[in-house]
Amino acid sequence: NSSKLPNVKTTIFTTVGNLARKHKALDLSQGFPNFEADPNLISLVNNAMMEGHNQYASMQGYFGLREVISEKIQTLHGHQYHPENELTITVGATQSIYTAISAFVHVGDEVIVLKPAYDCYEPAILVNGGKPVFLQLDAPDYSIDWEAFKAKITKKTKMLIINTPHNPSGKILSQNDMLWLQEILKDTNILVLSDEVYEHIVFDGQQHQSVSRFPDLAQRSFVCASFGKTFHVTGWKMGYCAAPKALMEEFRKVHQFAVFCVDHPVQRALAEYLKTPEHYLGLNDFYQRKRDLFLKGLAYSNFKFIPSQGTYFQLLDYTQITQESDEDFAKKLILEHKLASIPISSFNVNDRDDKVLRFCFAKKEETLERAVEILSSL
Amino acid sequence: NSSKLPNVKTTIFTTVGNLARKHKALDLSQGFPNFEADPNLISLVNNAMMEGHNQYASMQGYFGLREVISEKIQTLHGHQYHPENELTITVGATQSIYTAISAFVHVGDEVIVLKPAYDCYEPAILVNGGKPVFLQLDAPDYSIDWEAFKAKITKKTKMLIINTPHNPSGKILSQNDMLWLQEILKDTNILVLSDEVYEHIVFDGQQHQSVSRFPDLAQRSFVCASFGKTFHVTGWKMGYCAAPKALMEEFRKVHQFAVFCVDHPVQRALAEYLKTPEHYLGLNDFYQRKRDLFLKGLAYSNFKFIPSQGTYFQLLDYTQITQESDEDFAKKLILEHKLASIPISSFNVNDRDDKVLRFCFAKKEETLERAVEILSSL
Ligand SMILES: CSCCC(=O)C(=O)O
Ligand SMILES: CSCCC(=O)C(=O)O
Repeated sequence: NSSKLPNVKTTIFTTVGNLARKHKALDLSQGFPNFEADPNLISLVNNAMMEGHNQYASMQGYFGLREVISEKIQTLHGHQYHPENELTITVGATQSIYTAISAFVHVGDEVIVLKPAYDCYEPAILVNGGKPVFLQLDAPDYSIDWEAFKAKITKKTKMLIINTPHNPSGKILSQNDMLWLQEILKDTNILVLSDEVYEHIVFDGQQHQSVSRFPDLAQRSFVCASFGKTFHVTGWKMGYCAAPKALMEEFRKVHQFAVFCVDHPVQRALAEYLKTPEHYLGLNDFYQRKRDLFLKGLAYSNFKFIPSQGTYFQLLDYTQITQESDEDFAKKLILEHKLASIPISSFNVNDRDDKVLRFCFAKKEETLERAVEILSSL
Repeated sequence: NSSKLPNVKTTIFTTVGNLARKHKALDLSQGFPNFEADPNLISLVNNAMMEGHNQYASMQGYFGLREVISEKIQTLHGHQYHPENELTITVGATQSIYTAISAFVHVGDEVIVLKPAYDCYEPAILVNGGKPVFLQLDAPDYSIDWEAFKAKITKKTKMLIINTPHNPSGKILSQNDMLWLQEILKDTNILVLSDEVYEHIVFDGQQHQSVSRFPDLAQRSFVCASFGKTFHVTGWKMGYCAAPKALMEEFRKVHQFAVFCVDHPVQRALAEYLKTPEHYLGLNDFYQRKRDLFLKGLAYSNFKFIPSQGTYFQLLDYTQITQESDEDFAKKLILEHKLASIPISSFNVNDRDDKVLRFCFAKKEETLERAVEILSSL
């Protein structure tokens, strides 16, 4: 029984999370909030259960939820995904990403992945016999060199994966980036998988550039999104995929046999909750205050940084403190200073060392203040 | 963009379900209860949310739930699955099945599937480049000819899928069946995927023969199970996979990138609820009463049947009524008699016609009585 994923280990998030718990470290590693979800949202789930919505939802997802998502995207980005055949509710963005890749990547197909990258793309490609082709971006700002990207395209390129706002770098793609991408892909059949789970966490008045704003991109793209990130309920595992009809048709062929459908009461609750745009439009400011609190505290520290433009992650460069590897320093921070973060090396090609750690600031003020205290002492 | 699943259409359950709704037919097609879940179980989910268990569960599933599952299997079947590394909580049995196949079936591998079969096995094999090898069983009782099974084994056979209690036939595998299987597989490396979602719905005092009762089978098997079926909450999409450590390791490599983890509050609730064995041990009687109510009503009808031994499905042979195809007769029942069922042809090789329909009796008494009325008039 040879392994299909011989090199895959437990994800870095589980490994570091376990180490953090063991050493009772303050945990700014895995991306999840340590504050509570809105009690009103919880009530809506409870109501849905009490009202008896406890059997299978439809395979594509509860129609009422697909309708309100469709309206939301139309309002925010001016593109219409038809709720009937262009939207499917998934078990978080992770299943959305895995399913899009499984439905389209054949044995031998190449998929371009920009690194650093969140760790779920590569195994999904490999399980399906595809070949990940990496473009490694560089510190400090990890911006994309589109000419270098273009040079990675071959006749076998089936798909490109982008992620904006970007985990782990906290960088967002600009309108210019998107226009470049649109231009490069113009005469190709390359699909785009756009991981937009942090769509509502963008700072400093900037605009999230969803692929759905660019018609020539939208017609070849899967938009993978998350309610867990937006509503502070990462443990409810709820997201969706938006894609044009022809792509969605193939996506659903896999989806219906990979999970059939997703949690019904939570879908009912979200359909109701999403009707109030204030429930997500305030998120930019909410997280910007957290980012600012964290960075203000580090202004005179020995860490260097470029403020995160989006997501709930901030990179800190520690070259002025030590020359240890990302992994070693991250470990030392847990063991000796009781503070957990993720080494950026774990997102890079060949675990390249950048002397950078990733911190999640989706935390209570007191947690961030305590983290600042620890980091300032280094 | 050639399709990986060119022949897959929307599942029969969605197609028939939609038709039933459109024609306001009494729905005994898709397998789900039309009565309510235990309010105490709903309260437990609400409590878990209120207590703040709304962020990611661990990738393998909430440990407390894995512990109680382990104890339950030990008590019922005398086999110990270690909660740490032999159990993983999944998005229903469907994801458990899909993940086991994805983790182990390589391009060109053969997987033996006994037909009639639930419809999620074949696409999972095909997406992964495997080759389904079918053994078609025959009406009226669809029992397994183990010699015929043995003849299907080749050097390329990677896996066998069994399902007991069996959907759609309502047949359970006997201890003898299991011993035969154990004997045949003895000197092979063939894996067994055992779909046991109806483990707690077995009638007439018979014993569910889980593969975990047979050490030589257990060491090569994935047991895929469902809480949705057992606790009348198919829409909560919660199940698990049990397998020996070496197999589970590979399973988790795929699981962690296919979904990462599953709904956290529901896992907490189930961990608590499962501590009371009465919550599942009474299920046999509960459903036997429904089966008996349904069959008593049909005793003098023009349908022929062998009483279901397990699951919540009953097959009815309609040769005395019409010679129409399964599909045509099922459709006519919906359109003209307002009663929905599933044609067994949709579970057979090449949609072979058996003049048999499948009825789900996981329904309120009044629903079953109304169905009996309609069927008795034919
Ligand atoms: C699915 S676990 C990881 C959560 C996350 O998005 C991150 O920490 O990057
Ligand atoms: C996942 S939809 C089908 C439910 C079921 O198990 C059946 O009807 O056979």
